Amino acid sequence: MELAEASIARAAGLNPKLNAFVTMTAELALAEARQAEDEIMRGAYRGPLHGIPIVHKDLYYTKGIRTTCSSKILADFVPDHDATTVAKLHAAGSVLLGKVQTHEFACGASTSSPHFGPCLNPWNTDHVPGGSSGGSGAAVAAGIAYMGTGSDTGGSIRIPAACCGVVGIKPTYGRVSKHGVFPMVWSLDHAGPLTRSVKDASICLDVMSGFDAKDESTVDLPAPGMRDYGDSLKGVKLGIPTEFYYENISADVEAALHAAMAKFRELGAEIVEVKMPMIHRAQGIAMAICLGELSAIHEEWIATRPQDYGPDVRLMLESGKDLPASAYLQAQRARHLVVQDYLDALSGVDALLTPTTPITAPRSGDFEGSLQLARLTMPTNLTGLPSLSMPCGFSPAGLPVNMQLIGRPFEEATILGIGHVYEQNTDWHTRHPAL
Amino acid sequence: MELAEASIARAAGLNPKLNAFVTMTAELALAEARQAEDEIMRGAYRGPLHGIPIVHKDLYYTKGIRTTCSSKILADFVPDHDATTVAKLHAAGSVLLGKVQTHEFACGASTSSPHFGPCLNPWNTDHVPGGSSGGSGAAVAAGIAYMGTGSDTGGSIRIPAACCGVVGIKPTYGRVSKHGVFPMVWSLDHAGPLTRSVKDASICLDVMSGFDAKDESTVDLPAPGMRDYGDSLKGVKLGIPTEFYYENISADVEAALHAAMAKFRELGAEIVEVKMPMIHRAQGIAMAICLGELSAIHEEWIATRPQDYGPDVRLMLESGKDLPASAYLQAQRARHLVVQDYLDALSGVDALLTPTTPITAPRSGDFEGSLQLARLTMPTNLTGLPSLSMPCGFSPAGLPVNMQLIGRPFEEATILGIGHVYEQNTDWHTRHPAL
Repeated sequence: MELAEASIARAAGLNPKLNAFVTMTAELALAEARQAEDEIMRGAYRGPLHGIPIVHKDLYYTKGIRTTCSSKILADFVPDHDATTVAKLHAAGSVLLGKVQTHEFACGASTSSPHFGPCLNPWNTDHVPGGSSGGSGAAVAAGIAYMGTGSDTGGSIRIPAACCGVVGIKPTYGRVSKHGVFPMVWSLDHAGPLTRSVKDASICLDVMSGFDAKDESTVDLPAPGMRDYGDSLKGVKLGIPTEFYYENISADVEAALHAAMAKFRELGAEIVEVKMPMIHRAQGIAMAICLGELSAIHEEWIATRPQDYGPDVRLMLESGKDLPASAYLQAQRARHLVVQDYLDALSGVDALLTPTTPITAPRSGDFEGSLQLARLTMPTNLTGLPSLSMPCGFSPAGLPVNMQLIGRPFEEATILGIGHVYEQNTDWHTRHPAL
Repeated sequence: MELAEASIARAAGLNPKLNAFVTMTAELALAEARQAEDEIMRGAYRGPLHGIPIVHKDLYYTKGIRTTCSSKILADFVPDHDATTVAKLHAAGSVLLGKVQTHEFACGASTSSPHFGPCLNPWNTDHVPGGSSGGSGAAVAAGIAYMGTGSDTGGSIRIPAACCGVVGIKPTYGRVSKHGVFPMVWSLDHAGPLTRSVKDASICLDVMSGFDAKDESTVDLPAPGMRDYGDSLKGVKLGIPTEFYYENISADVEAALHAAMAKFRELGAEIVEVKMPMIHRAQGIAMAICLGELSAIHEEWIATRPQDYGPDVRLMLESGKDLPASAYLQAQRARHLVVQDYLDALSGVDALLTPTTPITAPRSGDFEGSLQLARLTMPTNLTGLPSLSMPCGFSPAGLPVNMQLIGRPFEEATILGIGHVYEQNTDWHTRHPAL
């Protein structure tokens, strides 16, 4: 109860500054917290999420609570069922503080809405929190919630984690059900958590994951857990791609990543170079797939209510309208080249170590900056590989820098375990924005 | 050796009349037959296909033997590897008589080629053999080969089986590898055999089926076999769809199907009506998927060599060029409605009993007739369900009529078993064209 009350108070106090929430559910939170406290007091402990305040990206269906996708079009949409993951997190005893902002329909990296306005970065409110799961990133970074759900089509979990200096994991495609999460680009979409620490990410991912008959893309595998490396990463090999990932990144990001490499070496890991000769194709392939699937999902609304979209999203949807099916299908067929590139690169290492974003959080209104944010995250949406985004430094201006650990299919336990050792031996996650 | 020699002689004698072959491989056949005879003589019997003369649709890659797809564009293409199914049938000891005609790139139901001319129907050479696997249909019906491979995107195994009065089975999607079979529409394509009897179809399907790492759509299941119903179909329920399948069919076809129902009742089966409220959507969905994937596969050639296609295939490819990705994707998303319709219909019965084609083999040049041929076969390409086409009568004009048995996913054994009992109790398969 005390945790819930403190979180509700913090949400109420900080939201005027951050605009992270679309809908606050304080009464529900108090009722859930009371129930959790009662259960725990009488010994019916449900596990580590029992009584823990969380938020849901407003793309996640919540029964009886409006789910707007931060859009004007769905501003009054109230689902009659919970997303599978919402139901799972509820069953684990978590306490819902509210629904938080996404970039309109998850279609952007700055978390702005034509109806609910922009969400702002807790580290510096002149900057974006990243997107599209920026509401979750801001609420977790600001110490309001312990976890926020996110969805990731081109980086929408990992980018706000990076801009807000928290942890976010895009699991392997098929690991977590997307039933009841409004789709952006279904063949690239992934659901996952944003949290304050790697260990928390592991706990939440375990709760969210598992086969779901309502989502035919899910696979029937046990929850991933987190591999225990003890205190040392001796024997662990991390691959540094010689192409793409370290090109055209800012000096801040580069410095933080090189410091992270040094820390990993100090922890016993070996850093090796890996080649990725086909990765330059990823961006074009991803763009055609995005435009094609987006245009199919929004076909009716973009024809009948174009003025109800924000200008950036409208532009994207209108660009997709006349994309030929052949272009879309050639892109889908070319995906396997990129997949093979990653599998080859990962064949001799435990994970790839890369920046999450090429720059720190851009200023609000810096459209060009926001467009750059997804460059280094998008490729693993094409390949479905698990990718962890976690803090590894700060820019001189005080904005967070995240690194990305990319693992083999369904080996979330490996990247989480490696990230956990790093986190235990650094103090980035103990720093908080002054709010 | 005697079998091979007789088949080669029959091929040489009849091909000027039927134009079934693109390439004859008499020398290879004799060498393979000699090897088979030697092996069998010394006790190294490989199984029921050992020494048996077969033909391959010229869409199946054969190492060192040209594989033209009955096209001008690939008239000189010589693959450097065998299709997985070609290798499997070879390993089973079969003897290859040659490569046989398909409709150009499998894109039609009359088996005509801009380069190799039309293939003709053994029952009446004024009529088409059906397509696109018409070469296999004609070669099997004419008593040249014991089995011909086929591929089926909208009925291309079952239609020539129907027009030529032989047996053809489109297995469940994923049952048989398509590696090395030139694709038509990859999400609808299926590979399978055309044979003289249901038992032969079962034997050949068992050899052709199985997981293949080179075809990611294949599943790892044991060969289907054929269920043994003994002499009676007591307890078997066959569903007759009240929509679509019996609408707008010719009197010949209707009469043969009603006679088949009577025979099934006589054999102990129960005939019940089933509803298929969504099936009317199948045709439009299939068309968008076909146009989209076809245009992706042929994108380069249709841009640079349009005059090298036959007029019908060129028209289809050019129609697909500007199909919006959204139309393609809406169609892919709508497929599940049709799948559900079939699963519901099949939930209370062992199989559906329908005509294979709405009319008997049309005359050559009757383009409208040929366009109709795929109407009743196409829906199970959308759904991936196993579908057996087998003789059940003749028109007064002496052209064959086939029925179609549609089963649940991966239950080929059921439809083959039911078909076998029917076949053992009728004599359609013992009639042969006068050639």
